[in-house]
Amino acid sequence: MLFDAPPVLPRGFRCASVNCGLKPTAKDLAIFVSDADAAAAAVFTRNRFPGAPITLGRETIKGGRLRAIVANSKCSNVATGARGLENARRMAAAAAAEVGTTADRVLVSSTGVIGVQLPIDIIERGLRGIAAALGPDPMAGAEGIMTTDTHPKALSTRVGAATITWVAKGSGMIEPNMATMLAYIFTDAAFDAASLDRMLRSAVGASFNMLSVDTDTSTSDTCAILANGLAGAVPEQAFAEALTAGCIRMTEILARDGEGATHLLRCTVRGAANDGDARRIAKSLVNSPLIKTMVHGADPNVGRLLMAVGKCVECDIRPGATDAWINGHAVVRGGVRLEFDEAALRSALGDEVVDLEVALGAGDARATAYGCDLTKGYIEENAAYYSS
Amino acid sequence: MLFDAPPVLPRGFRCASVNCGLKPTAKDLAIFVSDADAAAAAVFTRNRFPGAPITLGRETIKGGRLRAIVANSKCSNVATGARGLENARRMAAAAAAEVGTTADRVLVSSTGVIGVQLPIDIIERGLRGIAAALGPDPMAGAEGIMTTDTHPKALSTRVGAATITWVAKGSGMIEPNMATMLAYIFTDAAFDAASLDRMLRSAVGASFNMLSVDTDTSTSDTCAILANGLAGAVPEQAFAEALTAGCIRMTEILARDGEGATHLLRCTVRGAANDGDARRIAKSLVNSPLIKTMVHGADPNVGRLLMAVGKCVECDIRPGATDAWINGHAVVRGGVRLEFDEAALRSALGDEVVDLEVALGAGDARATAYGCDLTKGYIEENAAYYSS
Repeated sequence: MLFDAPPVLPRGFRCASVNCGLKPTAKDLAIFVSDADAAAAAVFTRNRFPGAPITLGRETIKGGRLRAIVANSKCSNVATGARGLENARRMAAAAAAEVGTTADRVLVSSTGVIGVQLPIDIIERGLRGIAAALGPDPMAGAEGIMTTDTHPKALSTRVGAATITWVAKGSGMIEPNMATMLAYIFTDAAFDAASLDRMLRSAVGASFNMLSVDTDTSTSDTCAILANGLAGAVPEQAFAEALTAGCIRMTEILARDGEGATHLLRCTVRGAANDGDARRIAKSLVNSPLIKTMVHGADPNVGRLLMAVGKCVECDIRPGATDAWINGHAVVRGGVRLEFDEAALRSALGDEVVDLEVALGAGDARATAYGCDLTKGYIEENAAYYSS
Repeated sequence: MLFDAPPVLPRGFRCASVNCGLKPTAKDLAIFVSDADAAAAAVFTRNRFPGAPITLGRETIKGGRLRAIVANSKCSNVATGARGLENARRMAAAAAAEVGTTADRVLVSSTGVIGVQLPIDIIERGLRGIAAALGPDPMAGAEGIMTTDTHPKALSTRVGAATITWVAKGSGMIEPNMATMLAYIFTDAAFDAASLDRMLRSAVGASFNMLSVDTDTSTSDTCAILANGLAGAVPEQAFAEALTAGCIRMTEILARDGEGATHLLRCTVRGAANDGDARRIAKSLVNSPLIKTMVHGADPNVGRLLMAVGKCVECDIRPGATDAWINGHAVVRGGVRLEFDEAALRSALGDEVVDLEVALGAGDARATAYGCDLTKGYIEENAAYYSS
């Protein structure tokens, strides 16, 4: 599945973003609109302190139909109590009025600092007249939801006559547990809400839920899909496969743009006794600060791979049967470090994409986790996030 | 319990360290000796790729008696196969010959890079004649086991006529699961091996097993206690309390000297539904990169506390009953961020010791976890650990 073409929104979808004054000059408010009611499904963070938009979104998505998504950056409207929930409702109502629908057809997202009240008056003012700016370029909407992302993120692909388009942001506080920070998927294919929900959960399990920039699970994670049906029916299996492939590609894009990251790190575990072990160990590898710094420094400290596998004490691990590779270079066989060409391995670790592969010799299950290296840039971003 | 006096070894214990040539000039080989056979107990890493010294040590400690501990730094003898185990046995035999005992009374530790064969000839040469250098200062032994530690670590306290002395190293790859990297405890109190084992496991549960510098569990963790009985019997309860207090104090010292650390971070959770929840949430707080960088930057981004509590999705969390404090400043009440004096909070976050406290309102259990901030120093240490 290729995602090389410039992304476009499917027919009947438009978006816009503006600077409404939450940030000094950058875009901070985005809206995505379907001309017709769209069947919709969504998954949200499992963090136990969800933001007000998550609480509202769970209620909204029960209807299974959406006309619009409205999202702001800079302030996440989390830990803001009853006033926060009221502000999220006002944001939905203001967006609904602007695009000519009702508030129960508008999904709200907010991303940014936790624990600050949403400046709702500024957002309401910002939404007034935004419909005039609506257009077909998904990058315009992607810009409005960026926090520490270094670039806006969107992808498109085709399934038969239909288009699927992903718009997302990531960057920090990213170990999603149901969905990543914010990922919106738009299609003109025709599916009902129950089918969308089933396909979305499957795709998210293999993609965003295997992503970790920093082990921290956001209080605002939202992944939603809207299908307005304007392209008619397409085969479900082909659609589901394209959906999963695009979610994985967007996961890689989010991982590569993790805060401070200079590498995309992919950790594949195979030969696991079961899916749970494969996912747990792949996550342990992708989350290990010592592996992440090893990749950052292109330092062939390959024993750290065994450390990160071995600390999963509850898994079926057979030291004598464990092999490992780094970008195709064999570095461990039967639990013992191999001699290897150190210069070649340093060079491989310098590649922008670093693949760690571990074979456990315990069964047939496999999983891949997605992450990035750990750099001084991450420290800089996060030692003054509130203040800057 | 105070630990301010200069540490001394208990009567009948002596130690020494030398540079044997594993490192350019720093001490890299240490030995700790009891004049008489000592009752002994030990706990080891649960990492599933334990080093050869761990495999050997589990066998050795079954006897319940030790005369000596021998330890080297720079190379951990992990992922080294049958040859590694043979080298660990040779290291025990060489130390035994030097101090006049048998190899089954010598505990071996190795710490340093994973996956490199131990230069056993150099170590055997280094041990020859080391007995002549034995003395009563535990710092001399502590120096020989340092890796990236910035200072040697030892503590002493008294219980009746007896002395307890801790010698340890820490610094990176530290989220112990049974014990920390290397911690040796010596006492001249009289206890049998079974009593020592019981008291040690209890003390470790409240101290080293609540320590995390970086979430990575070493393949070499060892915590051993030796009691040679030269001071006779002391009350078990007083001894056990002193043992736990000293283990907690040493845990704080190890956390404060975590790789790159500039703060000691203590995270206390109270009002938890059970001990498991309290420990899990305290660890989540102390391990969160976003909390660690917030402390590093003295950035009052207090919503991150709720994020780190809330991501423990399997725990009993009641958002409306959750309160939080930073160094005594109330920052969250009933799950909602309070207004606070930002300048005062920034100043508190600048203290060398930062205490985060969370009250869950779900029960009576409590736990404290120990860690440190995350800094560029950690990245520097670990992006070139193998190469330097």
